[in-house]
Amino acid sequence: MYIPFSVKNILRLALEEDIGHGDITTTFTIPEGHRSKALLVAKGNFIVAGMPFAKEVFHIVDAGTEFRIFHGEGSKVRRGDIIAEIAGNTRTLLSCERVSLNILQRLCGIATLTSVFVEKVKGAGVKIVDTRKTTPGLRFMEKYAVRMGGGSNHRFGLFDGILIKDNHIEAVGSITAAISSSRQAHHLLKIEVEVENLTELKEAVHAGADVIMLDNMSIADMKEAVKMAKGKAILEASGNMSLERVRDVAETGVDLISIGALTHSAPAADISMKIVR
Amino acid sequence: MYIPFSVKNILRLALEEDIGHGDITTTFTIPEGHRSKALLVAKGNFIVAGMPFAKEVFHIVDAGTEFRIFHGEGSKVRRGDIIAEIAGNTRTLLSCERVSLNILQRLCGIATLTSVFVEKVKGAGVKIVDTRKTTPGLRFMEKYAVRMGGGSNHRFGLFDGILIKDNHIEAVGSITAAISSSRQAHHLLKIEVEVENLTELKEAVHAGADVIMLDNMSIADMKEAVKMAKGKAILEASGNMSLERVRDVAETGVDLISIGALTHSAPAADISMKIVR
Amino acid sequence: MYIPFSVKNILRLALEEDIGHGDITTTFTIPEGHRSKALLVAKGNFIVAGMPFAKEVFHIVDAGTEFRIFHGEGSKVRRGDIIAEIAGNTRTLLSCERVSLNILQRLCGIATLTSVFVEKVKGAGVKIVDTRKTTPGLRFMEKYAVRMGGGSNHRFGLFDGILIKDNHIEAVGSITAAISSSRQAHHLLKIEVEVENLTELKEAVHAGADVIMLDNMSIADMKEAVKMAKGKAILEASGNMSLERVRDVAETGVDLISIGALTHSAPAADISMKIVR
Amino acid sequence: MYIPFSVKNILRLALEEDIGHGDITTTFTIPEGHRSKALLVAKGNFIVAGMPFAKEVFHIVDAGTEFRIFHGEGSKVRRGDIIAEIAGNTRTLLSCERVSLNILQRLCGIATLTSVFVEKVKGAGVKIVDTRKTTPGLRFMEKYAVRMGGGSNHRFGLFDGILIKDNHIEAVGSITAAISSSRQAHHLLKIEVEVENLTELKEAVHAGADVIMLDNMSIADMKEAVKMAKGKAILEASGNMSLERVRDVAETGVDLISIGALTHSAPAADISMKIVR
Amino acid sequence: MYIPFSVKNILRLALEEDIGHGDITTTFTIPEGHRSKALLVAKGNFIVAGMPFAKEVFHIVDAGTEFRIFHGEGSKVRRGDIIAEIAGNTRTLLSCERVSLNILQRLCGIATLTSVFVEKVKGAGVKIVDTRKTTPGLRFMEKYAVRMGGGSNHRFGLFDGILIKDNHIEAVGSITAAISSSRQAHHLLKIEVEVENLTELKEAVHAGADVIMLDNMSIADMKEAVKMAKGKAILEASGNMSLERVRDVAETGVDLISIGALTHSAPAADISMKIVR
Amino acid sequence: MYIPFSVKNILRLALEEDIGHGDITTTFTIPEGHRSKALLVAKGNFIVAGMPFAKEVFHIVDAGTEFRIFHGEGSKVRRGDIIAEIAGNTRTLLSCERVSLNILQRLCGIATLTSVFVEKVKGAGVKIVDTRKTTPGLRFMEKYAVRMGGGSNHRFGLFDGILIKDNHIEAVGSITAAISSSRQAHHLLKIEVEVENLTELKEAVHAGADVIMLDNMSIADMKEAVKMAKGKAILEASGNMSLERVRDVAETGVDLISIGALTHSAPAADISMKIVR
Repeated sequence: MYIPFSVKNILRLALEEDIGHGDITTTFTIPEGHRSKALLVAKGNFIVAGMPFAKEVFHIVDAGTEFRIFHGEGSKVRRGDIIAEIAGNTRTLLSCERVSLNILQRLCGIATLTSVFVEKVKGAGVKIVDTRKTTPGLRFMEKYAVRMGGGSNHRFGLFDGILIKDNHIEAVGSITAAISSSRQAHHLLKIEVEVENLTELKEAVHAGADVIMLDNMSIADMKEAVKMAKGKAILEASGNMSLERVRDVAETGVDLISIGALTHSAPAADISMKIVR
Repeated sequence: MYIPFSVKNILRLALEEDIGHGDITTTFTIPEGHRSKALLVAKGNFIVAGMPFAKEVFHIVDAGTEFRIFHGEGSKVRRGDIIAEIAGNTRTLLSCERVSLNILQRLCGIATLTSVFVEKVKGAGVKIVDTRKTTPGLRFMEKYAVRMGGGSNHRFGLFDGILIKDNHIEAVGSITAAISSSRQAHHLLKIEVEVENLTELKEAVHAGADVIMLDNMSIADMKEAVKMAKGKAILEASGNMSLERVRDVAETGVDLISIGALTHSAPAADISMKIVR
Repeated sequence: MYIPFSVKNILRLALEEDIGHGDITTTFTIPEGHRSKALLVAKGNFIVAGMPFAKEVFHIVDAGTEFRIFHGEGSKVRRGDIIAEIAGNTRTLLSCERVSLNILQRLCGIATLTSVFVEKVKGAGVKIVDTRKTTPGLRFMEKYAVRMGGGSNHRFGLFDGILIKDNHIEAVGSITAAISSSRQAHHLLKIEVEVENLTELKEAVHAGADVIMLDNMSIADMKEAVKMAKGKAILEASGNMSLERVRDVAETGVDLISIGALTHSAPAADISMKIVR
Repeated sequence: MYIPFSVKNILRLALEEDIGHGDITTTFTIPEGHRSKALLVAKGNFIVAGMPFAKEVFHIVDAGTEFRIFHGEGSKVRRGDIIAEIAGNTRTLLSCERVSLNILQRLCGIATLTSVFVEKVKGAGVKIVDTRKTTPGLRFMEKYAVRMGGGSNHRFGLFDGILIKDNHIEAVGSITAAISSSRQAHHLLKIEVEVENLTELKEAVHAGADVIMLDNMSIADMKEAVKMAKGKAILEASGNMSLERVRDVAETGVDLISIGALTHSAPAADISMKIVR
Repeated sequence: MYIPFSVKNILRLALEEDIGHGDITTTFTIPEGHRSKALLVAKGNFIVAGMPFAKEVFHIVDAGTEFRIFHGEGSKVRRGDIIAEIAGNTRTLLSCERVSLNILQRLCGIATLTSVFVEKVKGAGVKIVDTRKTTPGLRFMEKYAVRMGGGSNHRFGLFDGILIKDNHIEAVGSITAAISSSRQAHHLLKIEVEVENLTELKEAVHAGADVIMLDNMSIADMKEAVKMAKGKAILEASGNMSLERVRDVAETGVDLISIGALTHSAPAADISMKIVR
Repeated sequence: MYIPFSVKNILRLALEEDIGHGDITTTFTIPEGHRSKALLVAKGNFIVAGMPFAKEVFHIVDAGTEFRIFHGEGSKVRRGDIIAEIAGNTRTLLSCERVSLNILQRLCGIATLTSVFVEKVKGAGVKIVDTRKTTPGLRFMEKYAVRMGGGSNHRFGLFDGILIKDNHIEAVGSITAAISSSRQAHHLLKIEVEVENLTELKEAVHAGADVIMLDNMSIADMKEAVKMAKGKAILEASGNMSLERVRDVAETGVDLISIGALTHSAPAADISMKIVR
C-alpha cells in the first residue's frame, strides 16, 4: 500500500513525541539483544483498520520486525481474537507499543462506527461519506478507516474539490454567480453547493451545480428536494446525523449522507499488546 | 504561552493537509483583499480549551489576524455563547476555519470530559490524571486540555518517567530486581511500578517504589491496598474507569486515578465559525 | 496572495543552494550596514509573472526589504522597462539577486509563451491548458505563470483529477470497465479518459466519460470527434502542439488544447537587476 | 554516484508535489500487487543525462524497482532507441513516471544543448562553462548535465568562488581595492573579476586577478584582451552567447566561454515511458 | 542501540555541513567503484566511546559499509591500538572520515575525562554526574559518553526534571513556596533545589526537597550540610570542580558531584583513519 | 550579519533538545507575563565571540527580547565585566539561558585560544588558520569564532577546496597525476597538496600545486621547504601544533599554520547570566 510522505512524517513525529531521547524504563530493565513475540489482542468487538500504519511504526524503528496478520483490514473481530503476531527485538516492541496502539485504536474505532452507520442504511441506495472534521495530521489514515468500515470519502481537502458555502455565496452575491465564477476558473472539477432551503436548491439546480449539499434540512424538506433535483444533481444530506435518524434520511432518496462524527467522535476500539515470550 | 516547536510543526502539517496548494473555492469566490469579522460560537455546553493553538493556526497563515477572546481557557460556555471574535483577511479566515475548529473541538471535548470526572470525585482528595493514550502528534495539546478541565498530567512520554510494567518485570526476574536496576541507573526520577494484586503490591512497597499503579483491581482490593501502602508510596488506580465507578474508586483512598478515555474517547465539542461581516 | 508552504520550502532550498554558508564576495567587499536601491529591468519584451515569489525570496532573507512594482502580474513589458524598484540592505540585494531572477526569468518566459499560444487561438472558443510536464518542485509557480499568460490549468497532480490512460485501460480490460471502477470509487471528481482513435472515443462517450483527451489525433479525426461527442463530454486535444498547428486544432471545435511545452520548453525571459545607489 | 541530501530532498518534494495523498486513477484501476516492465524510449535525438536521479525517484517510492540501462550517461541516442528498461510494481511505475521523465527530459535537454556548443568550438582550446542561471533547487543536477554534454562547471554558488562584479567594485572604490580586500580575506580561493572594457582589464591584471570575465565585449576587444592578458590570468568570455557567435568568440583565444542558456533555455528532450507487460 | 531521530538529524546535518554538494578532491582522484579497508587508530591513551554514532555516519551515506570493532565502548585503548576496521567504497570512507572522527574524538575525550574524575573519587560512595553544559545538538551523545566513562547523568533537559534555582525562588518569594507550587503541579518528578548556604539548606530540607544542590560551598560547609541533611535528601555538590579538589568534596559525604567541564572542556582524543588497501 | 539557514536549524535543534515540551520548573514558578533584565557576566578573561548567535537563540523563542551589548565581537573582557544586558519575558530569559551560554562559552573559548596563538606568532608574517576538526553542526559558528580571535579560515568543507592527501595520491598513482586530474576537472579553485617530506615537496612544486601542506615536518625540514618553495606555492605547516612550538614554526617562513586544537580542544570560557530585576 502506498503510504504518503506526509503520513510517514506524522508517524515519525508520534514516535519522537513518545520515545523522545529514549524509553528509559525499557533501557534499564530489558537487555539490548533480547527478542520476543507479541500478540495484538482485541478487547472488544470491532472492525480492523490500520495495520499497514501500525507496521510502519515498528519498521521505522527496526525494519527487521516481523508481522503475521490473522484478521485483515475491514474484517470483524470479537473480544479475545488475536489480530496479529509481531516478532522482533523486545525493546523495539515495548517502545513502539503505545504509538501503534494509539493509531490502531483510533482507526478501528472509526471503521467500526462507520460500519454501524452503513449497516443502518443498508439497501437504501445511499452512501455514507466522511467530512473534513478529522484529527489534525491524521486525515489520510482516518479517511482510509472510513473506507475500511464500508463508507466513502468526500473531498480530501480544500484543494481537490469545490464546495461553495454560505460565506462564499454572500461574498459573490448569489449562488448563480458563485457557480459561474467557479465553473469558469476550473473546468475539470465538479462543483458542489451548500443550500439551506428549497429556494436555494432551485437556484443551485438551475445554475448547474453538480452536487448539492442539503444542510440541516428536515426529513420533509429532503423528500421535497429529492423530488425537485434527483438526477439533475448528486444530493448530499448533511448536519447532525445520528444513528437514530440516519435511516429516515436515507429513505428520502438522497445519494450521500455525510457524517462528521465518523472521524471526530468515534470511541477508541480497545486493543492490547501482550508479550508472549 | 510557550508553544513547543513540535506543536508548531503539527499545526503546520495540519494546514498543509487541508489547504494543500490552495483553497480553490475561496480563491474563485472571495476577492483577494476582502476583510471580515468572524465569531466562534458554542453549539453546546462545554469547557473552553485550545484557543492559543487556534490563534497560532491563523497566525501561521497571516500574522495580522486579530483576536478578541470572551471566554478564557478553562471557563464554561453554554450553547449560543460567543467564545471569540476574529478579524482579518476573509480568505485567511475561511481557509483556516476547519483546521482551527478541528483542534478546538477536540480540546474542548477533552477538557469537558475531564471536568465531568473531576466533578464526580470532588472532595475525595484524589487527582484525575491522563495517560499516554493520546492522538499521535497531539499529546502536548491534549495533556494541556486535561489540565484546563481540572485534571493533572501523568508522565509526558517514555523518556521522562519510569513505569515498570509486567513485561519489564518478567525480563528482569522480579519487581525487586526491576526497581533496583532502575534506581541504580537513575537517581533523579521517581520510580513507578504496575502491580496486579496485593502480593505484588507488598513486594513493590518493600522494594521502595515511589509510585504504585493498581492495575484493574477490585474496589475491595484497592481499599486493602490503601491500608497496606498509603503514605509509603503514591497510589494510582488504573484500568476501565467509568463515570459510574470513579467515585467509588476515589473513596478507596488512592491518590491518583488515571483514565485513558479522557484523551482517546472524548466526543468532540460542537463549535462553529460564522462570518458576520 | 497565498503562498503554499511547499513553495516557501522550495524558495528556501533555492537560497540555500546558492548562498550556502555565505556570499563571500559580497561579505569581503560590501560594508555590513550599506543600503541601496536596485531596479529590475526588462532586457526584452515579455509578460510579467512571478513578482510575489521574487518578493518572498528577498523577504525570507530580510523582511524589511521594500518593493515598488511598476508593471503588475500579467502585464506586457518592453525592453528597457523598469519592472520594479527594490530598496534594502545592499548585501541582501546582491545575495538574493540570482535566485529571484532565476525564478522571474522562468515564470515570465512561461507566461509569455502561453500568451503567444492564447493569441493564436483568439476567438476560437478554446482554452489553452498546461500539463504535469513542469519543473520538479516548481509546479505551483509554473501553473500560476500559465494563468498570468492567459492560459488555464489542468489538474494539479495525480491526486486531484482522474485521467485514465492506455496503461490503466489495459490493466482493467476496457475503457468501460476503467470508467466504471473509477466512478464507483469517487463520485465527486470528473473522469477523464485518453483515447487514440474514434472507436475508443465512441466507447468513452458511451461509458459516460466527463472529459475525453484526443491523443495525437489528426485534424480530420479531431473534427470527426467533435461531431460525435461535442456537448456529451469536454474534449481536450493533446500531443505535439506547435504554434503553426494550434490554430487549426482550435478550429476543429475542441474545448481545450493542452501543451507541455508551455512549462518544459519556454525560453527564459531576459531580466537584470541594476544597483542604482 | 554520490547524491547530495539536497538533491534527495528535491526529488522527494517533486514526488509529493505530483502524487500528494495518492495517485487516484492508478489506485482505482491497477490491482495492488500487479507487476510490469516499462521502457524508456527516445522520441528524438539527444544526449542521455540524469538516469541516476531518475532511478532514485523510483527507489524513493519502492527500493525494489529494477533497472537495466542500455545507453549510459553522456551517450547519444536516436529517436526510437530504448534507453532503459524498468521492472517493478505497476502502481509504482505509473506513479513515478511523470516526475522521473520531467527530470530526464530537462537534463537530457541541457546535455544536448551543451554538446552542440561544445561541438561548435571543437579544436579551439576553449571550455564551455555554465553559470548560476539554473532552475531553483536543481542546480546540482543541471550542472551535472552540463558535464555530461561535454561542458565544464563554473563555481557552484556564492560560497565557493569569488567573483567581483561592478556593484562590488563601486562599493569598495576600485578593482584594485576589491581584489586586495578579497585576497586578504581568503588566501585559498582564486579571485575572478568582471571587466567591461580594456582599461578595467589592465587594472585587473595589474591587481593580480586570477580569472577575468570579459563581459559583453566585442570580438575585436576580446582579441585585444587576449593579447594583453593571456597567460597572466584565465580569461572568460561572457554575455549573450549564441550558436552563431560562439565559434568566433572561441577563436579570440579566451580560455572559457560561459553560457547561461545551457541551463535556463534548453528545450526539453522528448522521452516517453511505455508499459510493455 | 536505539539512536533517537534527533541524533540522526544532527549526524545528517554534520555530513551536509562537511560534504555539501560533493567531496570534490575525492571525486577527481578516486575511481567510482574503488573499495578499501581503513583502520581507526588510537594516537594516544583514552576510553572508547561513540562507535555506534560513527557507524551510523558511514551507514547514512552507504548502508553497505562494514565494521569490525576491536575495542568496545568504555574500554581503554593505548597509543597505536587499532580500534576498528572499516571496509567499503573508498569514496565513502574518505568523505565520511572527518565527520566520524570529529564525533569520536569528542566523545572519547569526554569519556576519558569522566573516567579520570571517577577514578579520583573511587571508594568514596559518590557519583560523578554531568550537567546541561553540553554542545548544542550533541547532548544525547555527550551524556552517553559520560556513562561510558563511568559517570552518571543528571536530568536530560528542562523538561524532565525540576531544578529550582535562585531566580525561580526570587520570583515565587521563598524556597518553601517554590517547592510547594512545584509539588502541586507535578507529583511524579523529584524536586531539586539549589541552595547557597546552610540557612537555605535548612529551609529546603524542611520544605521536603528530594534533591538539594549545594552550590559553590566550601568543604567545611559541605561537611556541615551532610550532617544536617544526609538521608533526608539527595545531596549534590556543584561548582568549579577540579581534579585537585574533587576527592575532598567526595569525602564530605555528598551523594553526587556534578561537573560541567566533563562536556564543555574535555580535550579531544587523538584518533586517525588510515586507508590500508 | 547573515546567519545561514543551517545555523538557524542547529540553534532550533539545540532549543528543542533543552526545552523539549517545556521548561517545567520555570512554568511552575514564574508567572506568565513576568518581565526581567538579565546581565551576561564574564567570570574570567577572554575574547568575546558569538553574541549574534546568542541573540538569535532568544529571538527564535521571543522576537521581542531586547539586547544592549557593551563589549563587541572580538573585544577582550575581564572577570566581572558585563558583556550585555538582556530585557524580556522572564520565562524566555530563563528557558534560553543555558543554550545561549553553551554557544557563547564555546565560541569565546575558541576565539580566546586562537588569539593566544596569534599573539605568539605576532610579527612573523604568518597566518593562524583553522581546520575541519570542528564540532558537528557548529562549523560556521566555530570558524567565525576563529576569525574573531584574529585567525583565518581554511576551506569550509570538502566542497569548496581541493586538498589532495596521501590516500588520494595512492589511488591515482602520483602527486603529479593527482594534481593534473584535479586541474583538468576544476579550473577555478586553487589546488592544495599534502606532502610528508622534501622529495614530495619537490614533486608538488613541479606539478604546479598552488598550496602545499607540510605535514608533521621537523623545524629543520620546514626551513628547507621554505627555501625550496617559497613564492612558488603557499606553504602551510600542519600537525601537532602547540603553544610552545608555534613561534619556531612561524619563524621558518611558512605562510600558514593550521591548528586543529583551536576548535576541537579549546576550553570553554566562563560566563553566567544573572537576573537583576
